This record gives sequence, C-alpha cells and structure tokens, in this order.
Amino acid sequence: MSINVNGDTALPTRTALQQEAVERLVEAVGAERVITDPDVLLEHGHDMSVDHADALAAALVRPGSTEEVSEVLRIADDLVIPVVPQGARTGVVGAAAAMPGCILLDMSGMNRILHIDEADQLATVQPGVINADLGRAAREHGLYYPVDPGSVHISTIGGNIATNAGGMRCVKYGVTGDHVRTLTVVLADGSVVRTGHDSIKGVAGLDLTRLIVGSEGTLGVVTQATIALEPLPGEAAGAAAYFPTLEAALAAAAEAGASQHRPSALEMLDQPSIRAINAYDASADLPEDAAAMLIVESDTLGAAVDDVAEYERIFRAHDALRVDVARTSAEVDRLLEIRRNLHPGLLAAYEEVLTEDIAVPRGRLLKLLKVIEHASTAFGAPVATGGHVGDGNLHPIIGYTSADPASLERARQAFAFILERTIELGGTVTGEHGVGTMKHASIAQEFSPRLRALQVAVKAAFDPRGILNPGRKL
Amino acid sequence: MSINVNGDTALPTRTALQQEAVERLVEAVGAERVITDPDVLLEHGHDMSVDHADALAAALVRPGSTEEVSEVLRIADDLVIPVVPQGARTGVVGAAAAMPGCILLDMSGMNRILHIDEADQLATVQPGVINADLGRAAREHGLYYPVDPGSVHISTIGGNIATNAGGMRCVKYGVTGDHVRTLTVVLADGSVVRTGHDSIKGVAGLDLTRLIVGSEGTLGVVTQATIALEPLPGEAAGAAAYFPTLEAALAAAAEAGASQHRPSALEMLDQPSIRAINAYDASADLPEDAAAMLIVESDTLGAAVDDVAEYERIFRAHDALRVDVARTSAEVDRLLEIRRNLHPGLLAAYEEVLTEDIAVPRGRLLKLLKVIEHASTAFGAPVATGGHVGDGNLHPIIGYTSADPASLERARQAFAFILERTIELGGTVTGEHGVGTMKHASIAQEFSPRLRALQVAVKAAFDPRGILNPGRKL
Repeated sequence: MSINVNGDTALPTRTALQQEAVERLVEAVGAERVITDPDVLLEHGHDMSVDHADALAAALVRPGSTEEVSEVLRIADDLVIPVVPQGARTGVVGAAAAMPGCILLDMSGMNRILHIDEADQLATVQPGVINADLGRAAREHGLYYPVDPGSVHISTIGGNIATNAGGMRCVKYGVTGDHVRTLTVVLADGSVVRTGHDSIKGVAGLDLTRLIVGSEGTLGVVTQATIALEPLPGEAAGAAAYFPTLEAALAAAAEAGASQHRPSALEMLDQPSIRAINAYDASADLPEDAAAMLIVESDTLGAAVDDVAEYERIFRAHDALRVDVARTSAEVDRLLEIRRNLHPGLLAAYEEVLTEDIAVPRGRLLKLLKVIEHASTAFGAPVATGGHVGDGNLHPIIGYTSADPASLERARQAFAFILERTIELGGTVTGEHGVGTMKHASIAQEFSPRLRALQVAVKAAFDPRGILNPGRKL
Repeated sequence: MSINVNGDTALPTRTALQQEAVERLVEAVGAERVITDPDVLLEHGHDMSVDHADALAAALVRPGSTEEVSEVLRIADDLVIPVVPQGARTGVVGAAAAMPGCILLDMSGMNRILHIDEADQLATVQPGVINADLGRAAREHGLYYPVDPGSVHISTIGGNIATNAGGMRCVKYGVTGDHVRTLTVVLADGSVVRTGHDSIKGVAGLDLTRLIVGSEGTLGVVTQATIALEPLPGEAAGAAAYFPTLEAALAAAAEAGASQHRPSALEMLDQPSIRAINAYDASADLPEDAAAMLIVESDTLGAAVDDVAEYERIFRAHDALRVDVARTSAEVDRLLEIRRNLHPGLLAAYEEVLTEDIAVPRGRLLKLLKVIEHASTAFGAPVATGGHVGDGNLHPIIGYTSADPASLERARQAFAFILERTIELGGTVTGEHGVGTMKHASIAQEFSPRLRALQVAVKAAFDPRGILNPGRKL
C-alpha cells in the first residue's frame, strides 16, 4: 500500500517538540538510525490491519542495542512523545500502526540468535529474529520450537511475544508465553530490567514476564528473550477427514481433542474455506460437497500411528464421508499446507479480508459457527472459517473489495456482530492476534469497568506518563 | 505447636481500631464467622514455616462467599488493617502467618467443587478445595489433574494458586498456573473482578491471571477458579536407577530429561536421602552405597514401556549400579511413594527441618549440589537433597533440633549460604514454595532495585493502601 505524499494527504508540519525529539534522537543513537523521510514513515506507519489512518510519525528509529532503545525511551519519556514498537508489522489489529507525531521503534534490525544451549534447551534471541529462523536454528541443534503462527515465515519473535502468538501446534505445546523464560525489557523511563528466571520453575517475585507477554508494546520494549525449546517430536502421522455437516465435524473434533491421544494439531475448515482453497490450488482437490473438514496430527514418539488410527475410528464413528490418512511427517505437512492456503486463497478471491480471531470454550464452537453463518447471511458478507478447533479458536475471514466501500461496510458489520455474540457466548474477542485498535471497543464489552480500571492502573505502574503505545490494547 | 496464652506471652490489648474492626466484621458477616478466641488466633497464626513470631491477629474470619470476602476487605481497607489470606497453612515460607493486629481470612471453608465440565475439561472450584479431592473428582469424570505438590493431600487449590505450586509431574504437565483458566478475585478495596478466559486461548487485556497466581495473597483474594484438567494419562511405566556418583546420576538425568521420550516425572535422591528413607521405612530397601538414585516415569499412551526401555539404556550407559523397572502405574506409584517418604523420613530423623526450594538451569545442577555438600560440611548441618531434577528444582532439607538452638543456627547459616550461591549460579531462591517472610532478604539479592520497584508499583496498582499481606513476597 503506498500513498502519494505529495498528493491529497498534506504532511503535517513537524512541531517544535517533534523537532527537538529528532535532534536529541540523532545525538543519542546517530543520524543513520533515525529516519525522517516521509515515504519511509508512511510505509512503516501501518501493520497488516485494515484500520490505519496513515498517521505520520515524527521519526523512525532503528536501534541496534538495548542501550539505544533505552536512550530513545528516555528522550520520549522526557518529552512525553508516544513510542510505537514495531517488529515485522505483520499484525492484523493495528497494534503496531503509527500515531501522529510518534516515534516508531523498528526492532527488526535486532535480529540475532545469540545462543542456543542444548543441555538446557534454551535459545537466547533478539526480538527481530524471524520465527521460522529460530525454528531452523533449533533443529540444527536437535531441538524444536513448536509455536508456529500463520505468519511463521514473516513475523518476529518480538512480535510473537507482544501478541502472545499461537498457531496450529498450541493445542499440544501451548502459546508463545509458555515458551518465554526471561525477558530483557526497556521500561518507559529508559531503565532496563530482566524479568523471569533462567530455570524452568521460579516463583520469586510477581510474574512480570507473563504480564509483558501479550501486552502489545504497552508495558515495555523487549530487547532480548530466553526461549524454551523442546526436544524434537517423533515422526508425525495425521489424517484429513470430510464431514456431511458442521455438527458431525465438531462432534468428531470434540472427541478427538479430548481423547487420551493428544493431537499436536487439530484444525477445521468449513465449506467456503474448502472451496476457496480448491480455487487457489486445484491440486488440493478437496471434496466440495463436504460441509467441513478436519485435519489432525499426532507427533507422539512411538505412538503417532496408533493415535491416528484412533482418530480415524472417531471420525468414521461421526459419519466422515472420507478419511485420508497421512503416515509420515511429510504427508502431514502437505495437509497442514492445505490449511495454510486458506488465507492466501481468500485474499485471491476477495482482494481484501478482515480476519477474526475469536475463542470460546470448545463445547460452544457449534453455537459460534451458527453465529458466523448468520452474520454472513444477515449482512451479505462472504465469510470462510478456519480454525484451531482443538483450542476453541476460530478465524472467520470476511472478504471485501476496497473498490466497493459498501462491501467493506458489510464486512465491518459482520465483524462487529460476531465479536458481540462471541462475548455473549462467554468467549473472547481475541485468542491470539491481539486487541490493537481494531478490537478496542470490544474490550469495554468483554471486561467489567473495574477490571479495565485495574488493567489501566497496572499499565500506569509501568508507564506513568503513558508513552508506550498509548490507547492500544487496554 | 501450642502456646500457653496465660503464660509468658502477654496478650496485647486490642486497640480501639481493632475493636471497631471486629464490631464491623461481626455486623457484616455474622458473629459465627468472626473468631477472636486467642487460642484459635494463635493456632491459626502460623503456617508450617519455622519463622513465625506468634503474632496475634485481631480476628479470624471464615467467609462463606465472595460477597463476605468483599465485605471483610472493604472494612479492612477502610480502617487500613492488614489482611492475611490463609488456606490449609501448609506453606513453608511464612506467607500465611499472622502479623500483629491483622485480620486472618481463613478460606478453607469455601471448599466446594462447583462444576466439572467433561466436554471442556474444566473444573470450577472454590479455593478451599483440597488438591487431592480435585484429583479424585476429576478421575470420576474420566479426567486428570496433574499438579501434585508434596502437600497434595493437605494443601488447598487456593494455596496452590497463591504459591504457583509445582510437584513431581510439572516436568511434563507444568505448574499450577499452567492450569488456571480464570480467577474470581476480591481486590483490596472489596471490589470483585474475574480475570482470564474460559477459552483455552485469550489475549484480550493484560494477563492478570498469571500475575495473581504465585502472588502469595498480596494482590487479591481468590474466591473461585476455573481449572483446566487433562485427559487421563496412559498406563505408566518407570524405573529407579542407582548411581556410583552424583556426576553419573546427573548426567543420566540430563540425557533422560532432554530426550524425545518425555518423562512425566524425573526425581533424584542423594545418599543422605536414601539412608533417611531406608531408616524411615525398611521395606524401601534402597542400596545405601549408591551416591544417588533417579526415579523416572513415563505416562505416554501406548509408548510408556518403550520410553522406559530408552531411559534404562541411558541409565546403564551412565554406569548405573542397578536399574529396577516398573511396568505398571501401581509399580511406579510405589517408587514415587519412596520419594515422598523423604520429608517424613527426615522429620523422623531430625525432629525439625528447614526445607530449601532452589532452582537453576538443569545444566548447573551439579554445581549446585556441590554447593549444598559444601554448606553441610562447612556449617556442620545435616542436609539431604531430593529434587525435581527434570525441572532443575532441588529441595535440600536441613535437619535441626529445636531443643538445641545452636543446631537451628547452623541450619540457618547453611540455608542462607545455599540461597546466596544459588543466585550466583543464575538460579532462583524459590522454584515452587514462595517467598513469604523466609526468603524476603534474598529477593533483594536476586532482583535489581529497579525490578523490585516495578513489582512494588504493580502491587500498589492492586492494593494502594497496602492491606493485603503487606511486607510479604516483594
């Protein structure tokens, strides 16, 4: 997305305060790390969310060290200028979008894997490391980093920490926060703390590590993290199963997900998703008469094939139209690749999409899918739903065309309706993507005023002058 | 432990403020729930730690509902009287001990399991539920609660939440906090919030649930919790192995713990522990010439026996003197029972003990064990060490006799020395027992001043007048 800065959008004049900030930043970290070129600022002004006002930052800073981040925050805190930390800007809720006159803190250059400790199965990383790069490095040491958000090849560990990112393997391995052992964090006043414990267990002090994970850059800027890795899993096996009704698919998923045979992935795609994936990649060749499909994986060493035999039995008992069994990791990867084609497939079909990220207790998934179907019909917005059904986390994806503003409006209405009904079902408006600006209004519905006030008070304990990503998340 | 209140210890006169508090408490929750009998107050004045000053509370309140807890805190906050929440008082660090003139809040009567949801594998419980009772109830529904601290038969879920309790199965299943989905919490001002999400994933708002877990009653009073249960594990298998040296035992533990065959328990006992257990229960019949023993369990469905064959291979490759294989859950339970006899065995041998709870990255365990050996020799204090080596969490237990004050002094010196050296090794002074009053001084060594200030600021955001367990934990 590019904007002609010499066209309609008049560039605001830099205020004296912003000018002072830029001068002090240059002095502190060097001119080569402080970018004020409006083209760059506008390009870095947004993440992958639909909501961004093309706000112009005062400057973009590319720090190279914890000390430089500290210098930047000291200046920002002194001048009370908002700071927006950014990773790869792959977020979809606007948490990393610019606000007018802010300092953008681009952490993507701090991208070194500093150390991998094989004995303790730990990686020490800078925040700009791409998730898949950590995964590859871990495998080189005979280890495994299981957290694989859809953005695995483009998002950073720092961004994953900021959103507490999930993915397909969470159902067995947990989310990002379950793998963060320690964080080096620059606080709003520029001071540096290290939270957490290098040991697996540790209860000295309050658990500030888990508080900072998922805080979307509102509590501090992570400049280093110790990440717990896992032993390599066993050779995987899996299955894809196609069902005549959503009811049958969800009943099968519930039984497989709750069984003693713990899946390492348990995904669902509904009929619109199946059709979009076929249209995107004909080699997928999914049966389009199926109301829904499930993809399941087990990576339990020595038991994966037996696990999958049990899933197959469960799927057939729930009237599966067809079950395709994958007997190797490579075959399972092909199934999961089909799942990963949903988002690009829908982008190909609709040009633009709004991606939901709602979660409910698994027993309420059918009700939630009925809400989604209703929203699609009632508002005339195309919706395809894929989801981590093993976690109760769905991603309804709503298509629209930016050339047709009415289609965006319909998409927004469907989006808001689904969020509202999710809350009524006792669910949450975000399972793994975050709040940002997109779901800010929903937080008021999901949380009581007292709980919100408490969250704001905690934020103030970290950032009394409110310079870190103000107005986001809370 | 009882104290003759008519003897040396003069009872302090109740102040006008305390008198007012008692009157308002009686008015708010009824006389039958407000206890002022000094015998009861003294009995409830301490937990299982050695450090308690027999401080006399102004009153003990036994609330029956969230609303009553709210009433109590409203009064305490209004009068600025400290409140100490208590569960079963099985803690060993003084977090639940009385402070002079405080209100003790005895949560043990709120002990109902309100609901078990089989489909979503969730239990909704009051805080006074005994851990083992939740475990039994879960099994009746075909489910499993894996967190089994040593106090499993006597400690409450509320107390487990307050300390983020661990146990032998953490190495596979994580600690208490990994199983807490939501908390109903009464804040210091009496207001009630519900934190967390009923769904498995959820990133709306800051993660206050994990912040409250392990906060030792300093942030709020938990009156209800939703606990995630697990599917029943498979039939377990396991092994006990005996080693000629600590080095060999730790090398074997490191290899087994880091292997793809994920153990569900991995415990170590050193020679003094082996001897104490034999003395306590001759039927254990452990080889006393071994420098250390390991106990390992796998409960992986369909793979436990294979897993244990691999552990046996590892143990023999590390010069095990003997390996006893357990082929059923019942046989493994017998091995774990031997491990559980360490604490009672040492109490039988020494009358009184100080129990350490230190944790380091697993690769530093040998260094830590050398520190412990040195402390025992240098200060002349008997120390036996058992521990969750799979987690890097050790419990050196230091014996003394209360009839001999010098023996307590030696024990304290050894205790302090071990804590100090643990911090130098990059470890933490508490893996799962908490800070309370016993390790308060160590926190200043483990944390930087800025990190401590941040923790205090977070505490103030929850409890601005400082009435909840003041001076503890932070």
